[in-house]
Parts: sequence; C-alpha cells; structure tokens
Amino acid sequence: MSSIPLLALTGHYCAPHRTRIRDLLTTDWTVKLWTPDQSVDHLHSLLSKAEAVVTGADALLSGRLIGPITQAKHLKLLQIPFSGHDWLKFEMLSSECTACNVYEHHTTIAEYVMANILEWQIELRKIDPNFRTDSWDYGGSAVSGKKHGEVRGKTIGILGYGRIGEQIAKRAKAFDMRIIAVGRSSKPTPKPLDWLGTHAQWPQLIEQSDFLVLTCPLTDSTRGIVDAETLKTMKPSSVIINVARGPVIDEAALYNALKTGTIAGAVLDVWYAYPQPGEATCSPANHPFHELENTILTPHCAGWTDAQDERRWTTIADNLDRLRRGDPLRNIITLN
Amino acid sequence: MSSIPLLALTGHYCAPHRTRIRDLLTTDWTVKLWTPDQSVDHLHSLLSKAEAVVTGADALLSGRLIGPITQAKHLKLLQIPFSGHDWLKFEMLSSECTACNVYEHHTTIAEYVMANILEWQIELRKIDPNFRTDSWDYGGSAVSGKKHGEVRGKTIGILGYGRIGEQIAKRAKAFDMRIIAVGRSSKPTPKPLDWLGTHAQWPQLIEQSDFLVLTCPLTDSTRGIVDAETLKTMKPSSVIINVARGPVIDEAALYNALKTGTIAGAVLDVWYAYPQPGEATCSPANHPFHELENTILTPHCAGWTDAQDERRWTTIADNLDRLRRGDPLRNIITLN
Repeated sequence: MSSIPLLALTGHYCAPHRTRIRDLLTTDWTVKLWTPDQSVDHLHSLLSKAEAVVTGADALLSGRLIGPITQAKHLKLLQIPFSGHDWLKFEMLSSECTACNVYEHHTTIAEYVMANILEWQIELRKIDPNFRTDSWDYGGSAVSGKKHGEVRGKTIGILGYGRIGEQIAKRAKAFDMRIIAVGRSSKPTPKPLDWLGTHAQWPQLIEQSDFLVLTCPLTDSTRGIVDAETLKTMKPSSVIINVARGPVIDEAALYNALKTGTIAGAVLDVWYAYPQPGEATCSPANHPFHELENTILTPHCAGWTDAQDERRWTTIADNLDRLRRGDPLRNIITLN
Repeated sequence: MSSIPLLALTGHYCAPHRTRIRDLLTTDWTVKLWTPDQSVDHLHSLLSKAEAVVTGADALLSGRLIGPITQAKHLKLLQIPFSGHDWLKFEMLSSECTACNVYEHHTTIAEYVMANILEWQIELRKIDPNFRTDSWDYGGSAVSGKKHGEVRGKTIGILGYGRIGEQIAKRAKAFDMRIIAVGRSSKPTPKPLDWLGTHAQWPQLIEQSDFLVLTCPLTDSTRGIVDAETLKTMKPSSVIINVARGPVIDEAALYNALKTGTIAGAVLDVWYAYPQPGEATCSPANHPFHELENTILTPHCAGWTDAQDERRWTTIADNLDRLRRGDPLRNIITLN
C-alpha cells in the first residue's frame, strides 16, 4: 500500500462531491469513485485497497456494495453519508473497521414537520388557488369567509424522541403546542415536553396526539407498530406524519383509515418502495395514497437540502481527517 | 333610559355572536343587532340609546356607521372587534366615550407568517402534486432529485415590531433564524432579536432581510413605504410578506419587481380593494398578481380562525363587564 490512503466514494450520489471532499480534507487521501454502471470487479478491486468507503445510497440499493465491503481487508472506516443503517450488520465488518453515519438532517426534517403541521391547519394549498380565481370564500372578518385552524394549543406526539424529535419539540414549543413523546429508554422529561414516556406509554401517546409524528428507526419492534388497532384509538381529527421509514406503519391499515375517515389525514415522506438504480420512477406503495385528498405526499425529501448536504460532507471530511490523525471518530454506530 | 344598558352589535359579522356574547357576559345588557340591510334611521335610533357598540367591519365598510356613532350621546364604549382603526378619528367620539380594540390575532398571524416562510423554502405546493404523478423529481438521497431550501440561518426583517412582530420573532428564533426589526420608537434590543432599530435603520433592514415581513399599521408615514426604490435595495433572493395593510406597499412597484425578478417573491394577505357589503367578490388589486407564480396570495385571512374569534369575543364580553362594574377597560385606543 502507498503511504497515501485510498478513499472510495460509491454511487452517483457521491459523484458531485468528489471535488468538494478533496477541498474539505486537510489530510492526504487518494479519492476514487465507483458508480453502479461500473463492474463489480472494479468495485472489489477498489475496496480491497481502500482504507475508507463512503456508501452512497444508490450503490447500496444496487445490492453490489455489501459483498465487496465484507471482503475489504484494509477498511478502517465505513462512512455512511446519511443516518439510516438498518441494512448494516455486525458480521459485515472486520474488527479493524468502524462504521459511522452522519446526521445534520434533524433541523431540516424538523422544518418539514412544522411546515406540514402549519399547512394542515392553514391550508395555503387550498386558499391560494381559490383566491386566484377572485373568490373571497376564505376571506377574513371583512368578508366572513371560511375559517382555518390554529397550531396553538394542539398536542404533538413524537414516537422516537431522538435528535429529530428534540428539534421538532423546540420549534413546536415556540408555537405554544403541547408536546408529548415516547423514547426507547426511561428518562426524566426534558424541558419542552409535557411528558416523555417509554413504549409502555404508547397508548396514551396515540390517544392524546392531534399530530402523531414518527421519527423512530425501523427495527423489529417498530415495524408495523402503527397498525389498524393503533389507528382506531387515534382521534378522528388527528393527523399522522411519517418521517421515519414507511414500514413503521402498516400500509393497508393506513390506507383504510384514511379512506374511511378513522383519522383525518397523513403526511407521508417515507415509502414502501423506491426506484431501484437505473429506474427513474416507481409506485411508492401498493395502495393509491395519491388518490386521497386528506394526504400530503413527498418523495423522501424532508431532509433533502443543499445546506444539509454541505453540513454532512463537512462532517464526513472531518471524520476522514480524524481517522488519519488518529483522533476519535464522530457518530460511531454501535452494532450488536 | 332603562337601568339595563343597551349594547348595539353592528354588521353581519356580529350576527352569529349575538347569543354567544349573552352567554359570555356576567353583567346585564340588552343586546340588539343592526345589519347593513336595515335602515340608517334604525341604526340612528339604536345608537342614540346605546351605551356600547361593537363595530363590525361590514357595518363600517357600508359607510353608514360613522355618522350615527358621532351623534350617539350615551355611548361610553366603542368596541372594535378587531385591531385596525385607521378610520377612527378623535372628533367622532364624545368625551364620555372610550374606544377599545381587540388583538388575539397575533399568534394566529405569526403562525401564518411562519407557514409561508417554511412553504417558501420547502415548496410542498410543488412537491406534493409532482409526486402524485409518480414522479420522483424531488426525491431525496436515494434518488438524488431536486433539493429544497432551509429556513435555518435565514434573516427575517420585521417592519413594525409590536404584538405580531414579537410572536413572529419567538417562533423564528426556534428555527435558528436571524431576526432584525424596526419599530416606531427607540428601545433596547429585546432577547430574540439580533437588533431592533427605528425608521432610521430601515435601509439596513431591507438590505439584510431574506424575508421582509410587514406588520406595521397603515399611517401617513407607512403608506407606500415599500416603493420601487426600497424593492431595488432588497436582495434578489428575498421575499416580502405583507400582513399589514395593502397600501403599505406601492402596488405598481411591487407588481413590476415581482414580474421582472427584482425580488424573488411575495406573500400577500392584505389588499388594495375589498368586496363592498353585498358584493361577493372583487378584484383585490389593479395589477394581475394572480398571474405571477412567485406569489402566495390569500384573502386577508391570516388571522381568521375560530380560536381567534373565540378569544376576541371573550375579551369583548370582559370589556363590557368591566364597563358595567366600573373597572379599567382593556386595549384602550389613544387617539390624537
């Protein structure tokens, strides 16, 4: 091996950042890129020499990254350029290799969640197009038109009170919302919350929430945690917001609850199916959520901003510098 | 006069609240209603006996309320059921009569302003309809689609730092925005603000703002304060949000600035023309703002919610009770 270590960027996602990371790094690295249109042999050869790899989502989705990672003998850092790692297993990595992820999306996702809560109450998407036709149907006191709703005083319930939950709570508090949450472990209730419980308080959380926000990781215990029973115990006026992972909610149960008015609505950013590498599109679910008016639907973009990307690549470069200098790495993933 | 005083509610706006105010009042009042479809003679007769009048906006707009008010000899309380009172002049009222208004809309309008700032950055109104066609154009990291923007770190500039401004600042702070403002008088900068200036700092406010929010009253000094010159010194990426009064912005100058890209956009809730009593609709401006894509347009409804209405009528009933009991009135308007 040469004295300058090799960094393998993988996936089209990493391609535009090749120059940027070179600029951000303060230690020496040879930076090479593999994209899913190239051969697996090439990937094997690259990873067999690499000391660090950045695992772009499209490279992972291609299904060809895991094998070569498992066999990458010199790998010291597996750097995930996002936060989710439900695909990562302990046995994939040698004892020399540390896996790290990045966050920097929590404030961005909190903005998305608050935008949707506000939109749900105010409905700019209905008022603006209506007013453009010179209709004053939604006019205020001078016209006495249809009124909209308020966020103030409503209860927001957060499932999975971690980094994203904290940022949502901080913002919701400024709107004088009541905030309740359920996390993995029992902790004293932190400042902005009315109460913080564990999964034992899940029934109270779903009963009391006007907006139920899912921000938990997808694990064996959260898969399908929102099922038909859960939906039935929610307020009929309540709205579910999923920025976690699609399968945290049972798809058929959610579709039926929305269709029949068991709950008032859903804001869905995460899905049951995604376009595979090379595919431009795919249907995000088996059920036609896009036909339902009581939904706001977005393609897993809640955290997808340039500013988030910039913060993430700054963190990634910092971790590579830390590895080179022998300093402690940031955001180490603990695998069981 | 009978020992039970007369309360005159005026305008269709007050009609649905006739029963409610009777329920809310803890002191005795005879409550009568006049609506603009009734005669002016009837209004004159009612107001000549009334001790208090609630001035509904449609009654005011009908132009027939001012005369009878001026001649109402027993009037002790002129209660405006909203906040604006640019139409009210000192010489209209006898020395026995106090004018009061109500607020309770400041948190509601702050929600509207934040909803629009978030919508401007995230653009749910574009992402949701696009995704409903199974397009992943705006998809996140797995798809590497178009990115949206963030509120975090942006500068919000508030013209007219009063009740509404304070509530906007409180919320904007939770989003880690930079907040600057200009008010009527020189004061120490309060906590959430980066700086608070007077009209002398107006140039700095407009130059630094990513979102310029107008919350000032319409006065001789604010009419047309945003003119072609102002718009030229704003950032090309900036957005103006008007929840004050339409004529605070020069209409032609704003239309041209939006049309030619001098500024990036506008959120307009207040207008240059309103439907007159009996009219269902009217064009809100001389210029076709509704043809511009870089606008969000709403019919003066930023504060128009049931919860705001409930808070306002509770305050109005409280003021009537205070008048009866001889306690100090709330929200007294100081007229020059």
